Amino acid sequence: MAELTNIRSPRVKAARRLAKRAFRDRDRAFLAEGPQAVREALAVEGVTVELFATADAEVRHADIVAAAVARGIPVHRSSGEVMTELTQTVTPQGLLAVCRFVHVPLPEAVPPGARLVAVLAHVRDPGNAGTVLRTADAAGADAVVFTDASVDPYNGKCVRASAGSLFHLPVATGAPVPDAVRHARQAGLRVLAADGTATRTLDEVDLSGPTAWLFGNEAWGLPPELLELADEVVRVPIYGRAESLNLATAAAVCLYASARVQRQSLYPVEHPPTPAS
Amino acid sequence: MAELTNIRSPRVKAARRLAKRAFRDRDRAFLAEGPQAVREALAVEGVTVELFATADAEVRHADIVAAAVARGIPVHRSSGEVMTELTQTVTPQGLLAVCRFVHVPLPEAVPPGARLVAVLAHVRDPGNAGTVLRTADAAGADAVVFTDASVDPYNGKCVRASAGSLFHLPVATGAPVPDAVRHARQAGLRVLAADGTATRTLDEVDLSGPTAWLFGNEAWGLPPELLELADEVVRVPIYGRAESLNLATAAAVCLYASARVQRQSLYPVEHPPTPAS
Repeated sequence: MAELTNIRSPRVKAARRLAKRAFRDRDRAFLAEGPQAVREALAVEGVTVELFATADAEVRHADIVAAAVARGIPVHRSSGEVMTELTQTVTPQGLLAVCRFVHVPLPEAVPPGARLVAVLAHVRDPGNAGTVLRTADAAGADAVVFTDASVDPYNGKCVRASAGSLFHLPVATGAPVPDAVRHARQAGLRVLAADGTATRTLDEVDLSGPTAWLFGNEAWGLPPELLELADEVVRVPIYGRAESLNLATAAAVCLYASARVQRQSLYPVEHPPTPAS
Repeated sequence: MAELTNIRSPRVKAARRLAKRAFRDRDRAFLAEGPQAVREALAVEGVTVELFATADAEVRHADIVAAAVARGIPVHRSSGEVMTELTQTVTPQGLLAVCRFVHVPLPEAVPPGARLVAVLAHVRDPGNAGTVLRTADAAGADAVVFTDASVDPYNGKCVRASAGSLFHLPVATGAPVPDAVRHARQAGLRVLAADGTATRTLDEVDLSGPTAWLFGNEAWGLPPELLELADEVVRVPIYGRAESLNLATAAAVCLYASARVQRQSLYPVEHPPTPAS
């Protein structure tokens, strides 16, 4: 196999420019870096367009490369220099996929019957957004909605922080917050806004029903006009002296609280025995 | 007040080098950037050595500067260039404090009677460590222990991620993991190791008693020899398809689960009324 060594070759340039949102939107494609993301991308039919791999990575991740080949996906052996040009991490792991957009329309992401949804309202930091996506996946959420004015879910840092979860659960993108809230409510979900200034805490609200969590911007939270859209505003209790929690942490506590209560009410279990100690 | 404009002046150089751990350890001092951290530092007697402030910040944060002056702490008016030299953030907010080390010996951080402690075992990423510190503070933890081979809690990024919590609760640093575990147990805490491969989940263990949570490195977790030290190994349940949670997220779910159960058992409350909907 001929190795790609020229960082100015059309193939490399075409992939490289997907680091910019304007080109992603034009090509409806994005980059997924590293073995974990590439493996998850390959697991979804029709998502992976092509794969770039260093000779080293072809050996180290032979299973992944074989899976790509088996699916008829072109694998371009690439020099270290080309890989460095294409990736954004300090220590690229030698694997990079060009992927087609995976988001779906809002009604498909949040159908009637959905039980747990995270709505990112004007969340700008890609690391935060990707971490919430990963956490929502872990908590068994049905979907994550990136509203308009939120970070692009295909931003490289967001894709990396999602650790493959971008390929696991439906993601909708671009809806204005009021539309996302209206739609969630029509789909039968109660809309809870997470906000540090709320009167009621997470422990004081009923979380057993289908719930859409609304999380605001990392710096300024949810402004009054967005808080008003929610059925209830809820805060994570602060038991110590911290002024607040960061967005991804607050979202984790909220989403896991919902998941726990929803599962308890679906499958009631005996309280575990108390250890003898 | 004369303005500091020379980035090569001894005062600026002495503060600047505190960005490096070796100089922090020598001077037993570190830098706290931004209004929130500086405010929290000033609230602790004897911690703040000196303050650097731009003319802008002196106006914008007049209350903070006044508090420093009232405590007899030198305030150095600094040019924008000096502030940029001293701070590590892209948009420095014009305030920076030189602070004395705040950590305490392990027995003082974790005395008998402590109910909730986070132990960071070989956690290397300063952002993760600072976020866990902030979360532990929010969850009402009694202390956070940074074991040996963990990131320096005075690392600039860790201080920033802690959002002032470094000044809120006792932090111990440098103990080998076995010593920290032994000490926690002697202080009456049950030691739970958080690990994604555990058999039992958070929902299946009794969290009502005094608990020390052991959190491992962000990349490789807790190796077998450290898992063996714990009384029990517990995982955050993964309800969806995510392979794992990131360290700070897992820690948030664990610490809040403990806080909730401990408070329920201390102050049993009626189940909140279910909304009419």
